[in-house]
Parts: sequence; structure tokens; C-alpha cells
Amino acid sequence: MKVAVDAMGGDHAPGEVVQGALDAARELGVEVILVGPPEVVEAELRRRRPRPPGVEVAPAAEVISPHDPPVQAVRQKRDSSLVVGMRLVREGRADAFLSAGPTGALLAAGIFVLGRLEGVDRPAYGTLLPTRSGRPVLVLDVGANVDNRPEHLVQFGIMGSVYAEAVLGRPRPSVALLANGTEAEKGNAVTRAAYQGLSQAPEVNFRGYIEARDLPEGQVDVVVCDGFVGNVVLKLYEGLGLTLFGMVRDALTSTFRARLGALLARPALVSLRRRLDWEEVGGAPLLGVAAPVIKCHGASRARAVASGLRVVHEFVSRGAVERMRARLSAAPRN
Amino acid sequence: MKVAVDAMGGDHAPGEVVQGALDAARELGVEVILVGPPEVVEAELRRRRPRPPGVEVAPAAEVISPHDPPVQAVRQKRDSSLVVGMRLVREGRADAFLSAGPTGALLAAGIFVLGRLEGVDRPAYGTLLPTRSGRPVLVLDVGANVDNRPEHLVQFGIMGSVYAEAVLGRPRPSVALLANGTEAEKGNAVTRAAYQGLSQAPEVNFRGYIEARDLPEGQVDVVVCDGFVGNVVLKLYEGLGLTLFGMVRDALTSTFRARLGALLARPALVSLRRRLDWEEVGGAPLLGVAAPVIKCHGASRARAVASGLRVVHEFVSRGAVERMRARLSAAPRN
Repeated sequence: MKVAVDAMGGDHAPGEVVQGALDAARELGVEVILVGPPEVVEAELRRRRPRPPGVEVAPAAEVISPHDPPVQAVRQKRDSSLVVGMRLVREGRADAFLSAGPTGALLAAGIFVLGRLEGVDRPAYGTLLPTRSGRPVLVLDVGANVDNRPEHLVQFGIMGSVYAEAVLGRPRPSVALLANGTEAEKGNAVTRAAYQGLSQAPEVNFRGYIEARDLPEGQVDVVVCDGFVGNVVLKLYEGLGLTLFGMVRDALTSTFRARLGALLARPALVSLRRRLDWEEVGGAPLLGVAAPVIKCHGASRARAVASGLRVVHEFVSRGAVERMRARLSAAPRN
Repeated sequence: MKVAVDAMGGDHAPGEVVQGALDAARELGVEVILVGPPEVVEAELRRRRPRPPGVEVAPAAEVISPHDPPVQAVRQKRDSSLVVGMRLVREGRADAFLSAGPTGALLAAGIFVLGRLEGVDRPAYGTLLPTRSGRPVLVLDVGANVDNRPEHLVQFGIMGSVYAEAVLGRPRPSVALLANGTEAEKGNAVTRAAYQGLSQAPEVNFRGYIEARDLPEGQVDVVVCDGFVGNVVLKLYEGLGLTLFGMVRDALTSTFRARLGALLARPALVSLRRRLDWEEVGGAPLLGVAAPVIKCHGASRARAVASGLRVVHEFVSRGAVERMRARLSAAPRN
């Protein structure tokens, strides 16, 4: 298996990205093509000798920044690490692409360079959110789109279902639609039509609506929503998690007695913190394009990049894209 | 000041509601009209003697349950505590109405019985979410609507702004629009149009978009969103708060050492728990109808009802509805 890695994407590129890629290459035995300006990437590799077998460099002179307008950047910066990496996959020189670069540009490159799977109107970003049950929940779309139509949500349900089964190893994964109540008459115009569509989608174990309140309990495998709503969920999850931990920390250092207690409870709290850590969970799959693409958090350090490559490894070796293609072509079109 | 209280609304009615109303009557000196079947309410009052001055009972034989279809229930159960209470306000026999009854029915009764303020297409429920800064943020709409149009969101911004200033005592309150990014080109079709409208709304201190990530930090006074999205935010806030506290509790009882630490840290954690407690924050205002209406959580006990009546007291005494009426009539209509 050969994975193209955008060596220049993310806040801590290229150093942390290269480090994470090398760690994963050693651990998983995958071959890695680091995409970026050769002198820059080679310098990072020299700093991290010895180079594991199967690590190559593919030249790309430009970088797409989070400030570039995504579609325009992808069209104009044809020699950027992000576009070149995607092209390696299209040309069959790599099996998958991983990038911590800008979300919008990665989506645009996925659509323009790789193309969409047949039966997919809009690709979606999925993300795994930690839950109390210990089984992360796959939420999609979390930001590839705004203003989704009902048929998009149905496609998200099919893709999420395949991903959960193939990559997360959940047999007959349960799929729910996010809404403002659990009764079938709840929801808005889009979710009500998507409810009908998902009820009839073949091989989707559809459980109806789920309320946001129940999301952190982890009782379903896949939660489907519009990209605008999913983005709010993802960011509130991150923000509230950080804020609540911060408040617990403030409370635990507020008095001498509390500080003493915190010292004793520290190992237990650290282990909890780790369970909730997005760096452990790995990257967000871009679903609906013609090959496996994983987006890592822009703030990713080596550990998160390596974790993302573990996800890529499953994504490729389980043949998830082919299974999605088959399932989507079996679904009735609108 | 005279407040009509739905004695039969909520999971713990009538006992806890009557208790909370009596507590608030004593504390705030407000007069309270308890609405419900007289024999039931009088029995609760007898159990809680002596009766404070200014506590009356208004008869209503029926009860609207959360399982009743809201609009139909309000139309048919004209002698329900919820409809009768609202009618007491319309007839000027009470200054405000408080209910822990069903959200949808309370909204419908507010619209049909009290009527909307001029310039309001859709009333909205606001809610105060606890934040790290200690200043709760007012979010609206959190569930009166789904599928809002841009002009609704602009009206929410105006109403929220007046409420934050008048009732929460925030001078020149900052108002932000919830979206999937902070740049003006982010958002969906509805928020982008609402962004324009709010930029031009007179006397709204509009700060542009806010991401859900930043909501728990409490840096703005009012956050405006579609009722579907707001409901997701409200419920995820509740659910994630509960789940994270549960996980912290699990962690703190997982080992002997952690249990010992937790014992020492307990007072600090209890005080934090209280800061995050919705029962302390009070009820959710229904904004955009012609008089002050407060919705308490369906699970409210006496403490939450009393807390809701404290909010009613401010809502009425600050003349917030009159100030909203004036501000809305000054706003340009679409």
C-alpha cells in the first residue's frame, strides 16, 4: 500500500507531518510518498535518519494556505502539494491521500482531480466523535457542504454506513438522522424528506431521528446531518469539551484542598482526557470521491498524522471505496 | 406585579410547581395566580400552609400533555391550564405567564391567544447557556421554529438584543450569528442574508459570525440561529455537559486513589456543577409575543420554577416587551 502525504499541509508542517508519516511507515509497513518541495522535505528526512524503506518524495513547489480561496487555489496552484498529492492517487501511483491542509481546498481537489463516485451529488466529511460508551460515533457531513438537499443526506447515510462497517468494523451499523426531536413528524423540511429516503435506502439500518442530547452517549454508529449543522456539532463538541475540562481544571486548582485532591485523582483524569482526545481518534474521511482521502486536523502534530495514517490503512485495506461504489449504484436515484 | 402560573405543566406538577411559586411569592413579593383544577391546587396549597398574601387560584379543568398535538390541543382544550393562563394575561388580569408545560403548545397559545408583536413574523425561544466567563449567553431561537427565513433571524437579533439589555442588564449587548466559520463569506444561504440584515439593523451591536467552538467561552451576549440549529446546540450542550460530568464522575470513582482525591476536591466540583446547572439559570423566554411568557424545563422542580419566576420578575419590571415593541417598529421591514 502506497499513501501520498501532503508534507506541507497544516500548522506544524513540514516537520511534524514528516515525523508522523515516518512513524506510521515503520509501524504499519505502508509506503509513503511525501509531497512537497524536495529540498524542504529531504532536509526534514535527513534530520530524522535512518529513512525507513518505501519512503519517497514527490516534488511540488507550491503550498495552498488556509487563506487562499479554495476553488481558485486548486485551479491555479497546480503544482501545490495538495493538488499534486491528489493527482498521484488519480494516476494510480498512490492508493490514498492524507492532508492536514485546508478543508475547502482538499474537498475541491477531491472533486476536480479524483472526481465523485457515481450516485454521489456532494462528497461529505465524516468525523469520529468520542462518546461515553467508548465507541466513537461517525458524524457526517461536518463541513464539506452547507444547504444540503434531502438526497444528499440519504447518500451520506449510505456512505457512512459502508464506512462504519468496512473501516470501523461495526456489523450492520445503525444510522440516525440528527433532528430536534425523535418523533417522525419532527425535523425541518430537508430532514423530513431525508427521513423518507433513508427509510427506503437498501442495506441502511436506519433508526430514525436522534436528538443532539443523545449523541455523546454513543448508542448509534452513524449520525447524518447537513454540513452546516454538522459543523456546529463538531465545533461545539470540541469547544465545550475544552471549556468543561478547563473549568474542571480551574475548580481543581481553586483551593489547597482541591489541589491536593486533584493530585491524587490525576492519573484517572489524564486517562479520561486521553479518551476524549481528537489526536487519538485520527483523521476525518472525505467520503464520496473516487479514492480514500483523509483530512487531518490543521493543528495536527506527528501523533495525529500517524493516527490519520492508521485510518488510511484501514480505509484502503478494507476496500471501503469499492464497497461504497457498489452500494451507491444499487441505491435508487432521485 | 401579578404572574399567572400553569400549576399543571411539567413532569413534577402540580406539587413542585406550587411549591416553587410559593417560594418566589415570598421572596419576590409578586402576586401569583395558580391556574389549574381548583380542588387539586387548593389541596397542594393546604399542604403548604400558611398561604402567602396575593396567592390566588384560577380554575382550569383540562391539562395539555406533551403527547397532544400542540396546535390542535390549544384550539380544543380551551379550558386547559396553559390556555387559561395565557388568557388571564391577554385580559390584563396577569402581567406575565409561566409554564413548564409542552414547548409547542405554549408557543401556539402565545401566538393564538396573546398574538405576535408587530414586526415579528415568528416568535422565538431564547435560552441562557452557562459559559466559562460566568456570563451566560442568550441563544435564540432554540426550538420555536424550524426552517427560518433570514428576516426571522434579524428579528431574533433585535429581540435578543433588547432582552439582554433590559432583562440581563448587559449594556449595548453584542450579537453574533452562529455559522460554520467567522469570515463573512461563510454560512449558508439563510445566514448570509441574515448577516446583511443584522449589519444594517438599527441599535444592534452586531459582531458578525461566531463559531460553535467559541460559544462556551461567553465572549458575546446574544447568539442568533435558526430554531433547528439552536435546538441542536441547546441539546448538545445539555447532553455533552451531563456526559462529560458523568465521565469525570466515573474517572473519579475508578480507583481508590481517585476516590480519595475526589473526596477532597468535592466542594470545588460541586460549586462548578452548580454554575453549570440549568435549574439555577431559570426559564426560557418566549420572545415576540405581546406579553412576557417564560417556559420552564419540563423536568423543573420547585427550585427551577422559583428561578423562572425571578426571570419573570425582571422581564416584567424592566418593561422588556414594550422596549421590544418600540425597537421592532423602528426597524425597516422586508
